[in-house]
Amino acid sequence: MAIITVLGSGIMASALSIPLTDNNHEVRLVGTHLDREIIDSIQDSGVHPNLELELPSSVQAFQLEELEQVIDDAEVVMSGVNSFGVEWAAEQLAPLLKPGQIVLSIAKGMGVTDEGDLRILPDVLADPVPEDAKDQLSWTAVVGPSIAGEVAVRRDTCVIFSGADQQALDRLAELFRTDRYHAWTSTDFIGTEVCAAMKNCYALGVGIATGVLETLEDADSQYRNHNFEAALFAQGAIEIEQMAKLVGSEATPHVLPSVGDMYVTSMGGRNVRVGRLLGTGMGFSQAEEELGHPTLEGAAAIGVVGAALEKLTERGVVEAEDYPLLRHLYQVVELEQPLDIPWSSFYGGER
Amino acid sequence: MAIITVLGSGIMASALSIPLTDNNHEVRLVGTHLDREIIDSIQDSGVHPNLELELPSSVQAFQLEELEQVIDDAEVVMSGVNSFGVEWAAEQLAPLLKPGQIVLSIAKGMGVTDEGDLRILPDVLADPVPEDAKDQLSWTAVVGPSIAGEVAVRRDTCVIFSGADQQALDRLAELFRTDRYHAWTSTDFIGTEVCAAMKNCYALGVGIATGVLETLEDADSQYRNHNFEAALFAQGAIEIEQMAKLVGSEATPHVLPSVGDMYVTSMGGRNVRVGRLLGTGMGFSQAEEELGHPTLEGAAAIGVVGAALEKLTERGVVEAEDYPLLRHLYQVVELEQPLDIPWSSFYGGER
Repeated sequence: MAIITVLGSGIMASALSIPLTDNNHEVRLVGTHLDREIIDSIQDSGVHPNLELELPSSVQAFQLEELEQVIDDAEVVMSGVNSFGVEWAAEQLAPLLKPGQIVLSIAKGMGVTDEGDLRILPDVLADPVPEDAKDQLSWTAVVGPSIAGEVAVRRDTCVIFSGADQQALDRLAELFRTDRYHAWTSTDFIGTEVCAAMKNCYALGVGIATGVLETLEDADSQYRNHNFEAALFAQGAIEIEQMAKLVGSEATPHVLPSVGDMYVTSMGGRNVRVGRLLGTGMGFSQAEEELGHPTLEGAAAIGVVGAALEKLTERGVVEAEDYPLLRHLYQVVELEQPLDIPWSSFYGGER
Repeated sequence: MAIITVLGSGIMASALSIPLTDNNHEVRLVGTHLDREIIDSIQDSGVHPNLELELPSSVQAFQLEELEQVIDDAEVVMSGVNSFGVEWAAEQLAPLLKPGQIVLSIAKGMGVTDEGDLRILPDVLADPVPEDAKDQLSWTAVVGPSIAGEVAVRRDTCVIFSGADQQALDRLAELFRTDRYHAWTSTDFIGTEVCAAMKNCYALGVGIATGVLETLEDADSQYRNHNFEAALFAQGAIEIEQMAKLVGSEATPHVLPSVGDMYVTSMGGRNVRVGRLLGTGMGFSQAEEELGHPTLEGAAAIGVVGAALEKLTERGVVEAEDYPLLRHLYQVVELEQPLDIPWSSFYGGER
């Protein structure tokens, strides 16, 4: 039996307790300061209010103040916050991590330096840890098409544990793997993390097709706008792969964290909904307001990566004609410019 | 103004008349023996009964007997039949084709030799044409995510014209390209055609996820089966690319005819519906009957390619562990074996 301590009790972090407890491991869910009511609910009734499910009784829930008491003897420490919380989680975890622990990151997004060089989030998570201590920890992540609730109710799900340390990855796969939660490993840490982050950007793009359809005279026709969606999906697939190489991946392309996860993310959710509003011609600020200012990891990644691409293009690191879809999404989402899909710049340029 | 003669007046062939007539070209739709009522309807009212749309008055419709009279002066001859009609269309067209014509194929499927070597359908279409005449024709195809009705109502659509002769491809792109129908070209004739054929197989696979969900106790839960779908989609993406290389493509992978078209095909249609029934545990024959024996290009391609893979594996041309999803679909669809997704064989093998 292994002990897994999780900082953050959002839906994905909590859903991952299911394969672990199915394998009889001990899961300690520690809420952030934003998760107090979630932890109260799990402590009172076992029910995770956002998943709308009762967690197994072997999942223990703790408030943030208890983190220090439940982390020392953990074999795996999961950073279960989303991309907006990674720097905060890094500060919380850095003083508490013990040599030999596996640190597992689940956030999807990109970090960036002042010069515009993109970084994967596990590196951001490691920032406050002193160099010599860093090397005594195994930094890892999990990627792949995983709707949290489906993991929680044990739908078949295929994921990849990635990181530099194959032994740690094998151990994670062993801890998590069940007959429904299928696990692979990859030492292409950068490539898998870039794919996982970028797919959110393009899923937002796919939502645009629906919004555009709504503005057409024959919007109620039996013919939808799937060709449009698929064309954006395909251009997204190209840009994801280019981006993985740009950030430093040398491996062959992955499919689970790129097209697989982009597919699942395109099936619905907040990023698709905001894309739909943009497709109707609404500005991004208004769309955000209309949706009640939800957490939009896709929009955030578009902001980070779009700004980085401008710097990288100025520096001559990337070509101006590369990433036309991401650049346009940046113009629309971050700069509030009108939507005007640059079709002829796709797939290397219309010719 | 160019003249385009089309053999076959199904929905895709007919939809392609829209970008052509938008560019003021002359389109002559010639029905097959199965299309008599479609041609009657277009001649009477302009309405294509299956598209449920009125075609532009510049589209002329002809019965099969008139083919010979309307093909001589065509610059482009389109074989507008589906994969089941290619050999028939080849026999009709072979004696009538004139040197210099561009022959455009739209069927999606694979041919095969007795030894199990896979062939692209434009090669099957060319079979009855004498060798010296073959060389005086330009053999081409069009691929990419295109729901016919969406093309017909001018939704944005991105396609690739492929073939060996770049000049012919440029000409096709020029004839078809509008501000909604976006056209690229590729001389990777084999790669593009293999992608376009295989995506139907895997879209059927995606339907399976929905059927499996329906058999679960909590099928009415808010949590669907998208992780399962996405995992099959990702494995499909791997196998499509491997298959393109196997048949002879040397180019970098395409995205429009592979993941783009697989995405659009997964959004619905007959192949997805039959997949759904297979997912519930129904045998293929019964599923076919339940759906009223529709034209199932995906199931047909699974049959052709699955049988070919057995021969190619025996001959040592492919490894037994490659194409695990296609092989399983073959077992289920062709051999009526029970559905049992071989998860651990995906992505190179669970590890």
